[in-house]
This record gives sequence, C-alpha cells and structure tokens, in this order.
Amino acid sequence: MSTRAGIVVTGTEVLSGRVADRNGPWLSDRLRDLGVDHAYTLVVGDRPGDIEAALAFLRDESVGMILTSGGLGPTADDLTAEVVGGFQGREMVLDAALEGRIGVILARNSRRWRDVDPEALSASNRKQAVVPAGATILEPVGTAPGLVVPPAGGDGPTVVVLPGPPGELQAMWPAAAATAAFRAAIAGATSYEQHMLRLFGIPESEIAETLRVAEDAHGLDGLEVTTCLRRGEVEVVTRFEPAAAPAYAALEATVRERHGDTLFSVDGSSVDQQVAALLLERGWTIATAESCTGGLLAGRLTDLAGSSAYVAGGLVVYSNQAKTALAGVDAGLIERVGAVSTEVADALADGARARLGADVGVGITGVAGPGGGTERKPVGLVCFSVAGPDGARLGHSATLPGSRADVRERSTTIAMHMARRLLRGEGGLRGT
Amino acid sequence: MSTRAGIVVTGTEVLSGRVADRNGPWLSDRLRDLGVDHAYTLVVGDRPGDIEAALAFLRDESVGMILTSGGLGPTADDLTAEVVGGFQGREMVLDAALEGRIGVILARNSRRWRDVDPEALSASNRKQAVVPAGATILEPVGTAPGLVVPPAGGDGPTVVVLPGPPGELQAMWPAAAATAAFRAAIAGATSYEQHMLRLFGIPESEIAETLRVAEDAHGLDGLEVTTCLRRGEVEVVTRFEPAAAPAYAALEATVRERHGDTLFSVDGSSVDQQVAALLLERGWTIATAESCTGGLLAGRLTDLAGSSAYVAGGLVVYSNQAKTALAGVDAGLIERVGAVSTEVADALADGARARLGADVGVGITGVAGPGGGTERKPVGLVCFSVAGPDGARLGHSATLPGSRADVRERSTTIAMHMARRLLRGEGGLRGT
Repeated sequence: MSTRAGIVVTGTEVLSGRVADRNGPWLSDRLRDLGVDHAYTLVVGDRPGDIEAALAFLRDESVGMILTSGGLGPTADDLTAEVVGGFQGREMVLDAALEGRIGVILARNSRRWRDVDPEALSASNRKQAVVPAGATILEPVGTAPGLVVPPAGGDGPTVVVLPGPPGELQAMWPAAAATAAFRAAIAGATSYEQHMLRLFGIPESEIAETLRVAEDAHGLDGLEVTTCLRRGEVEVVTRFEPAAAPAYAALEATVRERHGDTLFSVDGSSVDQQVAALLLERGWTIATAESCTGGLLAGRLTDLAGSSAYVAGGLVVYSNQAKTALAGVDAGLIERVGAVSTEVADALADGARARLGADVGVGITGVAGPGGGTERKPVGLVCFSVAGPDGARLGHSATLPGSRADVRERSTTIAMHMARRLLRGEGGLRGT
Repeated sequence: MSTRAGIVVTGTEVLSGRVADRNGPWLSDRLRDLGVDHAYTLVVGDRPGDIEAALAFLRDESVGMILTSGGLGPTADDLTAEVVGGFQGREMVLDAALEGRIGVILARNSRRWRDVDPEALSASNRKQAVVPAGATILEPVGTAPGLVVPPAGGDGPTVVVLPGPPGELQAMWPAAAATAAFRAAIAGATSYEQHMLRLFGIPESEIAETLRVAEDAHGLDGLEVTTCLRRGEVEVVTRFEPAAAPAYAALEATVRERHGDTLFSVDGSSVDQQVAALLLERGWTIATAESCTGGLLAGRLTDLAGSSAYVAGGLVVYSNQAKTALAGVDAGLIERVGAVSTEVADALADGARARLGADVGVGITGVAGPGGGTERKPVGLVCFSVAGPDGARLGHSATLPGSRADVRERSTTIAMHMARRLLRGEGGLRGT
C-alpha cells in the first residue's frame, strides 16, 4: 500500500471561485511523480476552525503527508502557519534571522512601488517570520517562507506549508521535496504509471462499451481506469503499478482496434502539441482568421513556447467590414450567403493564408450567442475551414451546445483537430 | 447561525487536475445567493471509499446540505448515485419510467454519431436509471438524471447529486433548488451580503496596513474580510450579515480615502466590464495589434456577449513581417529599436486603429519567454501602447514575473487597465 497524501487549499477567494485553484492540480502531478497516492483535495476558506477540521479529516484518513497552499500573506486573514503549528502541537516563535532575510526582500520589492509605508512593511515582515518551533523553513520566493512541519509527538502526517501564488509555490517545491522531513514522510511510496488515451469525435457511451468488452476479453485487474469528457474530447486515463503493464497494453490494443479512427493520442500528447509538431516537421506556418472565437485560436496556437517558429499571425475579424478589409472576403458573398456560412469560412481561411503568407489558413465564423441566432442559423452554429498548399481544404460545420464560452472554446478544439487532419493528409471530421 | 453546506466534486480527472473544476465555484455562488454558508469543497477521485469518507466528513461537520458533481456517466467508474444511496441508507432501484425517458434522449443523441452500438447505448441507459429509493429525480439535461436524496433516517444532511458537465449541472440547478427536499434542507439559511473592492497598481502589504488602520479607527466587527492577489489586481472581499452594513460602509470609506488612485471598482465590476461600458457609452470601437499575447487580448475583449458592438477586430502579428504587412509598422523602425520597444508598441496601436478603422487601438509587444530574453530585453519585458482619437495616447512598459502563461495573462490585464484609463481621460499607470 502506497503512502497517501492530501492537499488543503486555503483561501475564501478560491473556495468561492473568484480565483481558480491552480495549486491542487500542480501538486497532484508532483505527488504522482513521487509515487505518492493523492487521495483528496480540500478547499477551505480563511477560517481557522475549518482549516483545522480539514487537517484533522486527512489525519483520520491516515494520510502520511498534507500539502497546504495559501494563507501565508501579510494580511490578518492569512492564518495557515499558525493553524498548522497548533495542529502539530508546536509553539509559534519569531525567527529573528528569517525576519532579517524577509526584510531585505521587502526593502528591495518596495522600490517597485511609490509611496510605500515603511511601518506597513515591517509589520508584514514580522508576521511572516513567526513560525512553528522545530519546523524546517523553506526560503521565501516571494516574501513568505514555506514550512515543513512534522507532528511534535512523532505520530501523524507531516504538513508541508506552501504559499498561494502558483509561481511562488512551484519555485519553492524542489526545496520542500529535498528536506529530510519530507523524505521521511513519503518513505513508503511505490511507483505508479499513468497513461492517457485521447479520442475525438465519439460519444462517451462507446468508450463505456469498449471498457466492458476489454474487461470480458482479458480483465482489467490492477488497472484504475477513469474516463472523462473534456472540450469535446474523451480522455481515458489509466493508473497502475508496474506489474500491471501487460494488462494495460491489452486495454490499449482493444481501444486502438475499436476506435482507430478517433483515437488521436496514446502518449498523452494534446492536439495542440501534435499540431505544433506537425507544422515544425513540415516547416509550415499557420495563420488564422477568426470571427466568433475572437482571437482564442490564435491565443491557443501561441500558448506553446517556440510557437513563433510556425505561427505567422492572425486576424480577428468580428465585423463584416473587417472580414472584407482585413481578410479580403468579398462583401457581395457575405451579403448573399451570410457571414456565418461555409463559403465565408473558406474565404477567411484563404484570406488568412494570403494576408499572412502562411502555408495553412484557418477560418472560423459562427454564432457564439447568447443573442444573434435565427431559425436557420441558431446559436452555436459554427463553420470552419482549413486551407493548405495545393488546394488542400477541409470544411466542417457544427451546432455546438452550451454557453457562449463553451461554444468559443469547443470551436478552437474543432479547428485544432481539423488542422491536425489536414497536416496529416487525412480527410475531414466525423461527428463532434 | 446559518445553514452550512459542503460540495463534493468527484472525478479522478479533476483531482489530478487534467480538468479544471468549474462546478465548485459556480455552486458556491448559488449557495451564497441562497444565504447558505459554503464551508468546504472536497475533490475526490472515482473511488467509492473516498467519496463516502468525504460525505461522512461533511456530515460530521454538521452541514445541512451536500452538493455533489460528477460520477453520473455511463462508465463503470461513475459511482456517485450508488455511493450516495448507500450513505443515506437507501436501496438502489431501477426506475423503469426514467429508463424509458433516458432511452428517448439516447436514441435522439445517437443520430449525431455514425456507427453507434445499440447494445452499448441500452446498457448505459439502464445504469443511469438505477437510483436510490425515495430520492427526488431531476430530469436529465444531458443523459444523466440528478437526484435530491434526504437521509432515510431523517437525521443528517440532504445530498443533491448533480452531473459533472458544467452546462448540464447549471441547467439542472433551478429544478434541484425548487424541490421540497432541497427547500427543507436549507430552511435555516440567513442572508449574507458580499461586496468586493478591486485595486490595481499597489502591493498587498498596503491593503494589510489599511485593514489595520480601519480596525483601529472603527473596528471590523461582523465583517469577514479576505484579500487576494489576482492577475496583478488586489481584491478585497467582505462578507457580512445585513446588520453590519454600517461597519462595511466605514471600511469602504477608509479604503477609498487611502487608495483612491488605485481603487477602480467598488461594485464588483471587472475592468473588462468597465472597458465595455465605457466604449458603449462613448460609442467607440476598439482594435488590437498583439505580438506576445497572440490574440488573448482580443479573445478577452470578445468574451462578453454583445462585444460586436464595440470590438472592431484585431491583428495577431507574431512575426516582424506580419507587424509590417498587417499593422503597417515601419520595417526600418523595427530594425533600429527592436520589435520589443515602446516605439513599436505605439506603431502597433496606431496600426490597429488605422487598419480596423477603430477609435481606440491597443498595441502589445514583449518577450513572453521562456526563451528569447537578452540582458537589455529580459524575459517578461512587455511594452504597451493605447491610442485614441485626437492624439490621445498612454504608454507603459513593465518587466513581468512568472511563467510564459503568467506574462501573457498579466499583459492582457495591464492593457485593459490602460484602455480604461484612456477612456476615462486619466493619465498612465503607476507601478504594476
């Protein structure tokens, strides 16, 4: 049995959803890398009683390690260090040397701002240097130190206290994982493998049936299989100890056999990464002309570092006037068939290619909603076109469900898959 | 004391962070609207024992209601209905009428796909129609029904079982909240108010000091104040029962007095909403020319429904060639001062205005990283320019910390604030 761990994310702003939690997922990946079984993430507000109850729940569930994020800032609602100290039976003490080091950081940072109150700074400084006695201190990345706090009595989980800003937390992680207290807490970890299959263009019920077929044919013993729908893609993730590798290979073969046409990734790579690799491999560039997605596809294409090697650029042509002036779409065509049409999508793809001198052009035009739909062109209708060299072209239209944000996001996924298929010399999409 | 509630988000894909949880935050808002005190969100994988432990923790914490999301799909890892039935002491029974209604939905949906296996469909159908005896059934929005499940013994929290896909969950919510079992479970709810102040351009330590000043001057009794940093903005959220409204008014006055120049929102409105309102008010349009942000600013401007009224469009000019060809930036200028420079930012803003015939143009050029930095132009350096009618212009440069994604996102926030200031006829930004 592997060491189990839990994550406690503190912060009323995260609990209420004003801020999306990026630390739980990131820490989950790190735990998996270490062979630690991540069992729970608890999100709690900035209330000491609730934070303590969350810690106690995880102790009752016999986790060997608890990671906390947040609540180390200068304001009075930042309470994590104190609550963890009490939970582990340790007194809070001012670490004078740490206070000095934080002071140096604060003095340096304050030069970025005008009119900073020095008294405010030094009060913040002192608060952040009060730590549980006997804890291992992790040097601040921002201004807050992290902590590794074993239980004073020796029995129970070790608590690793990390800052809330994702950049600080991530930068502090290697130091945390290297401490003796951390290593001791996860001494029982076994290694897991995790593999992901990604499919595009089939409903989840088909995968459910395939898993039943695989179970009947060769069993799924030792495999923890989960499936989920995401942005129109089906993901099948399997976690197993090394001894179950043959069972996983049999499962993968069954999925491949039954869903060869929609299985696009067996190594966890995303369609974004595949499109990038295909463009680099061919030495081609890509350009976009987007109406309803308003730049999101270009933003997604440029998410990856190094994308300047293959992204020529893009046009956001929200108005009909912009479609004509920027992407060269014939105004008469728009008048004849409407801005949301396969013809205009084609013209946008061609315009993107021509205006940006790119090898591949992508055109998207649709009704993102919530207004603007008609009986013939309802909210959610989106037309796509991808054009390549030598007259290569794929077209697609779909009426996408969900909110404005859903329609826009799903549209970028469909466009990515069309680009992938064109780059691989394959035909168009089936259902989406 | 108000009714407390907890949320249990199930799904290994959410626990491991492959899918960001959108349901916890959304449900948290709904609970607040109902005056219910949201105390915890627990994220658990698709393991029955862990789901049950999460439910038991919330029961021990005396919540009156538990909302679950996810685990209602057709695959064998979808276990929530069964676990909740057991937890509430209720037998699982096949609801034949529900099976029939799900069958109709599945038959209709299967027309979207080619080659769907009818046996797979009917097995999925049956699984999703097995529900706890005595539960109130919420009609499916996708294919999965929701459930409102009071404890069989009458003692303990009522569990509301909702589907995982955010669109389905949100569409099902009104029906769930209208059931008699739901109303009974939250009968003790009191109403809370929640207000948010947003500031841009100051460090969090200044707000900490202001809260101490406010506490000394007039106390913060009855106010639950939390602050957080988000994308370079500081948010101060205060939650209180109606009787504490005067205390909140005093707090707001103190913040306004000390931070009038950086406090940009007292009604919870975002800078995005304010820019949209200012553009509509003036009858102006806006256009973008983005290099390092690659379309994210245009995507953000078009996030809001109705943005076609004021977004003319945008240019994504990743390469120098595109900067010249599309935005009309002088190639000699780029050669002389470099693509990342205030001069090129100005030229991009002017080019966006001119090429899209917009009233306001925004230019962004920078080094998003992780590569491409030099000693003079390090990773994170971003130059901004916003140009308006009659020669109005604001410029700004900043070296932003964090990852490529952080730099890109923070850049869109700075650009939004600059646009806001230009639209209000104010001067440029101070620190960021």
